[in-house]
Amino acid sequence: MKKLINKPEDVVKEALAGMAVAHPDLIRVDIEQQIIIRKDAPIQGKVGVISGGGSGHEPMHGGFVGAGMLDAACPGAVFTSPVPDQMLAATKAVNGGVGVLHIVKNYTGDVLNFEMAAELADAEGIKVESVVTNDDVAVQDSLYTAGRRGVGVTVLLEKIVGGLAETKAPLEQVAELARKVNKQGRSMGMALTPCTVPAAGKPTFELGEDEMEIGIGIHGEPGRRRVKLASAAEITEMLATPIIEDLGLKAGDQVLAFVNGMGGTPLIELYIVFDALQRILNGKNIAIARSLVGNYITSLEMAGCSITLLRLDEELFRYWDAPVHTPALRWGR
Amino acid sequence: MKKLINKPEDVVKEALAGMAVAHPDLIRVDIEQQIIIRKDAPIQGKVGVISGGGSGHEPMHGGFVGAGMLDAACPGAVFTSPVPDQMLAATKAVNGGVGVLHIVKNYTGDVLNFEMAAELADAEGIKVESVVTNDDVAVQDSLYTAGRRGVGVTVLLEKIVGGLAETKAPLEQVAELARKVNKQGRSMGMALTPCTVPAAGKPTFELGEDEMEIGIGIHGEPGRRRVKLASAAEITEMLATPIIEDLGLKAGDQVLAFVNGMGGTPLIELYIVFDALQRILNGKNIAIARSLVGNYITSLEMAGCSITLLRLDEELFRYWDAPVHTPALRWGR
Repeated sequence: MKKLINKPEDVVKEALAGMAVAHPDLIRVDIEQQIIIRKDAPIQGKVGVISGGGSGHEPMHGGFVGAGMLDAACPGAVFTSPVPDQMLAATKAVNGGVGVLHIVKNYTGDVLNFEMAAELADAEGIKVESVVTNDDVAVQDSLYTAGRRGVGVTVLLEKIVGGLAETKAPLEQVAELARKVNKQGRSMGMALTPCTVPAAGKPTFELGEDEMEIGIGIHGEPGRRRVKLASAAEITEMLATPIIEDLGLKAGDQVLAFVNGMGGTPLIELYIVFDALQRILNGKNIAIARSLVGNYITSLEMAGCSITLLRLDEELFRYWDAPVHTPALRWGR
Repeated sequence: MKKLINKPEDVVKEALAGMAVAHPDLIRVDIEQQIIIRKDAPIQGKVGVISGGGSGHEPMHGGFVGAGMLDAACPGAVFTSPVPDQMLAATKAVNGGVGVLHIVKNYTGDVLNFEMAAELADAEGIKVESVVTNDDVAVQDSLYTAGRRGVGVTVLLEKIVGGLAETKAPLEQVAELARKVNKQGRSMGMALTPCTVPAAGKPTFELGEDEMEIGIGIHGEPGRRRVKLASAAEITEMLATPIIEDLGLKAGDQVLAFVNGMGGTPLIELYIVFDALQRILNGKNIAIARSLVGNYITSLEMAGCSITLLRLDEELFRYWDAPVHTPALRWGR
């Protein structure tokens, strides 16, 4: 196992300590409880927006904490759900008196623990709404999931919903927009290589030298099929077609096109995939109105990519374009 | 070779085509000539700032083109210098009538070709100043270099000098600041794994399962020594100590600490290295006043990292903090 780490059991806490010193202008970090909090939280009269999940997907979610996106994130151990106490502490830390939104990717552990955290928060008088993302068209049910998995749309949703929450919109409206974004976006991913969880010390699965896995999950869960290596154009077609069909995209639609790296793929390759994707969309007269290219929801050092398409409308444009100031996404005033 | 590409010979042009569609608000791209140009260039009365070098180090340099940083970048083939004609075309495209600065990393091919481009520009009446970066403390002379190699400081220099150029400062002042930044910064890198140039189809060098290379160059050039794997804390010490000594950093100094990923290393590991680095600097009472953590000057999918420290003063703070709007670095209004 070749990794820049010290002891496997210290990976998450040391990374959090590094984040705290790297971004003191944006966030504060409770290393003991494993919570990353927006520096100026809680903000009175603003809905708190939090998310969380296993570590190993950086920058998601901790890198998305800051003005205009998340108020807090609670990372678990690598590829392991955070615990309800941690989620409750994050909920309390960002409670500005008007409720808190929980953004939950559809993995059984995350869903159960966030449900318990919401009940605990309710018992303490904090109103919580939960939205579960399930945008992965690859498979129905999976290793850690009943139903579709939550993947790339989560990144876009956290940005857009964070933009609305910043306007001090009420909790119901923030939750409603979150459900809408989840409904208007779909994703699919693939892997060229596996990844190694530090505590395990060996790859989560194996892939032959001439093989790739289409429809892979972000923890290496099995996808649709294992096939021979193909060109970037062919791979992009295999990912984009099911997304376009499932979303029912048609000529004249405007989308946000998101090409995401799994962690070990160089940026130059992601732009090649983006080029292949724009050719496909162009051919169908679907307009790329916004884009995101880079490593945003990763699987440690896995080589591969995922594609997410999000159908845009006026409301989504407005909150996607709104200012954001986080370690990993930053624009606007 | 497991890569998201089509034909190896199309890698650079397809990636450029992807960039053009992904960032139409920031840049325009001449795919044929392989030049990425700031959307609103040339700007009358503003010094044009350009750089270039082999591809495979993305986001450097093309990802740094935009307001507040580079006016143009000319990428060569992977790990291959761009040609003088390309550099001349970029120079002409950004000439706002008051001269152009060439930022050149110290590799023999880049240096010779930029020298020729400067002569060609001069013959066409465009005043050019050239600044060569040579911040890598690992080795004196190397596979492609006489003297020290230009690495991480180049990223910081392009941001800071771009900030000054935006104020319409004269060419001599812009070039002087570039030389100062180069002088106040040092870097050193390491690799856990090699990388594969698409046209070659096999790794540029080999590393045993329990080995790493300390002092590696960004094209896989040999470093100081090949040693057994060590912990993140030990590796950080091996990189930081020569930098601190060479720069003569002392208690009370303020630095920008830059932990850079080589392309295949997950962000969580870079934050662990950042944490180790802040412990070392803390122990010497050297203050981290600014920071940058992520993949900015890469070597395709190489796993590993580099550390750059830049001594800050009032002038460097001002232009580091100034607004920047490029595909890879973005903040401020």
